[in-house]
Amino acid sequence: METRKVILKETEIPRRWYNILADIKLNPPLGPDGNPVKPEDLAPVFPMNLIEQEVSAQRWIDIPEDVLSVLNIWRPTPLVRAVSLEKALGTPARIYYKNESVSPPGSHKPNTAVAQAYYNKAFGIERMTTETGAGQWGSALAFACSQYGLECKVFMVKVSFEQKPYRKSMMKAWGAMCVASPSRETKAGRDALEKDPNSPGSLGIAISEAIEAAVTDETGKTRYSLGSVLNHVMLHQTIIGLEAKKQLELLGEYPDVVIGCAGGGSNFAGIAYPFVFDKINGKEIDIFPVEPIACPTMTKAPFVYDHGDTAKYTPLLPMYSLGHTFVPPPIHAGGLRYHGMSPTVSQLVVEGIIQPKAVSQTETYESGVTFARTEGIIPAPETNHALAVAIQEAKNAKEHCQ
Amino acid sequence: METRKVILKETEIPRRWYNILADIKLNPPLGPDGNPVKPEDLAPVFPMNLIEQEVSAQRWIDIPEDVLSVLNIWRPTPLVRAVSLEKALGTPARIYYKNESVSPPGSHKPNTAVAQAYYNKAFGIERMTTETGAGQWGSALAFACSQYGLECKVFMVKVSFEQKPYRKSMMKAWGAMCVASPSRETKAGRDALEKDPNSPGSLGIAISEAIEAAVTDETGKTRYSLGSVLNHVMLHQTIIGLEAKKQLELLGEYPDVVIGCAGGGSNFAGIAYPFVFDKINGKEIDIFPVEPIACPTMTKAPFVYDHGDTAKYTPLLPMYSLGHTFVPPPIHAGGLRYHGMSPTVSQLVVEGIIQPKAVSQTETYESGVTFARTEGIIPAPETNHALAVAIQEAKNAKEHCQ
Repeated sequence: METRKVILKETEIPRRWYNILADIKLNPPLGPDGNPVKPEDLAPVFPMNLIEQEVSAQRWIDIPEDVLSVLNIWRPTPLVRAVSLEKALGTPARIYYKNESVSPPGSHKPNTAVAQAYYNKAFGIERMTTETGAGQWGSALAFACSQYGLECKVFMVKVSFEQKPYRKSMMKAWGAMCVASPSRETKAGRDALEKDPNSPGSLGIAISEAIEAAVTDETGKTRYSLGSVLNHVMLHQTIIGLEAKKQLELLGEYPDVVIGCAGGGSNFAGIAYPFVFDKINGKEIDIFPVEPIACPTMTKAPFVYDHGDTAKYTPLLPMYSLGHTFVPPPIHAGGLRYHGMSPTVSQLVVEGIIQPKAVSQTETYESGVTFARTEGIIPAPETNHALAVAIQEAKNAKEHCQ
Repeated sequence: METRKVILKETEIPRRWYNILADIKLNPPLGPDGNPVKPEDLAPVFPMNLIEQEVSAQRWIDIPEDVLSVLNIWRPTPLVRAVSLEKALGTPARIYYKNESVSPPGSHKPNTAVAQAYYNKAFGIERMTTETGAGQWGSALAFACSQYGLECKVFMVKVSFEQKPYRKSMMKAWGAMCVASPSRETKAGRDALEKDPNSPGSLGIAISEAIEAAVTDETGKTRYSLGSVLNHVMLHQTIIGLEAKKQLELLGEYPDVVIGCAGGGSNFAGIAYPFVFDKINGKEIDIFPVEPIACPTMTKAPFVYDHGDTAKYTPLLPMYSLGHTFVPPPIHAGGLRYHGMSPTVSQLVVEGIIQPKAVSQTETYESGVTFARTEGIIPAPETNHALAVAIQEAKNAKEHCQ
């Protein structure tokens, strides 16, 4: 029997995150007055220990034991060689994928949700708020909060709230409150409903509601949480790539190409940043973040200062942005419909260290079906974007070797 | 960091299935004439290599390499110590669970679907038919058929077909055809629709349609597949318990109690039969199949000869049965709403080797929520039945040790 997977022991889970801020320089986020945001300005929104992490330039940051002992519910995750896909493509390329779908909520999101819940708890916070579009991030935070005994409130975009009752049920099973956004619980929600009583909601409105619910809580024991874009979120996700590197080392392999899909950037950063570190230190390697042609943030938009949300509650961030009022076409990959891109991912594109690609929805779905019928696993619409480029690369390898 | 999981290497996947027919005697299935069914009578329904397995009394049966090399897409599966649940219960008991949810379709079902697809392919069959209620079995067979290049047709109970579009999408992604049952494609379906044009369908009707579609195919290249009840299905699932035994051995553990939920019996047989083998050979161990109070096959029904389906297409099987026309209340655990019980599970109950338990839906859901908020994984309604009894046992252990 040919083996497919490289599985680490629990004791081999990486003990430190890699912080890319040690190796690249970002322009600072700006406040409403145009001046750089100071850490204390963010204190009503995030706990100070996470704010410190957000601005830290320390290259390796220890993962707390109490975070590891929740991550090990599902980590380490398998690194799988896609032998059946390789055969179907007739490629000489060796294709590996990191399977983050084995987490309880089903995505990579709990890698940061668990860390954020831990740091909030450690800071004395009792309640977290967040928004969710399709529900992956909200369910990840609900899961994480249940592990640390925190209350959790999720503002879920109303159209998803109604279309995806299972995600809502999952959040409730974990003890979180999930409300349709726009809601009557916040001024931002009430304003949106006044404009349009039948508003289907949007991620922009939901973010505004979640931030407002956190900062207006008079007990001071509530904070907001974001599932992508920010530096500390990218940091927490690097455990994916650090694990993958260990697994490849066990095989005596080092990749020529690393590929990840990118919406806000955290999935891509997770697999890619540990290899970006190598590239900055001289390794020859191609690194591709992949986005939809329908929401071409890195491949078509300008690099500017823009807000992270529609209501302009967030600071101005230096990033590729289609504009905070941009509404992308209703493609299925809900996680890749964000108008902006993580400042660190953006900076790496600006510096030419990584090369963004864009693919069409049709090609992504064809790639997903090819993967399902060979490797057996049905990938998410977001993941299909990375797969499409992996298949392009595998075909290129075939041509170059003939 | 305390470790939670025991993870085997791929090379440690068991290489043989355990066949309980080596250790217990069953009364034979009977045909419509009241005489024992002969292997050749089943030839239009199943391929002969699976029929031989169905009647084999060989204790250990080699798992073909080509089956192992598909099972290793997700196997070996983790054995996890439920440390957080133990703490929450304050029990001295050590609780382990075998996580079969990591398979591509999300349940234990592909363990037999893959084996059945392989044997059908090896026998020259080109197309398989089956029925599915909620969709787990249909999607498992769709996945398995895609791995061996077989066509697959799934008759899905109409009410589920309409309520659960995602399962239908999964089957289509794997290349299977999925039709709502009753359909106009079979006589059984047309008869059902004539009686009631708005029939929501039933598992009984869907089984009849799938069998009819297989036996009436004039090319002779189509066979039917069943996801539980039969001897060869139980056989294929024993890989679960054999793996679990290896994992417990690595910890120096041997269980006092083994618990599994039982609808048709395959989930229970999978975890339990390797331990039943030990018990027959003198080990002291309690083994509990758990069913819903609402469908009390083993705990309330008589041990009789009955049909496996409503339309009486199947032979008469010796089993506990609530009657092939029994319609259980609409509890959420769709997989535990079967009127009968696998003949081998039934025989073990008759002989007093295993002790069935029944639990209420309310208790199962409370147990599932407790598990979700401690162990982090949201279990299926079926699994919650096993959990409810595991929690009862853990509480008993606490009382006995105080």
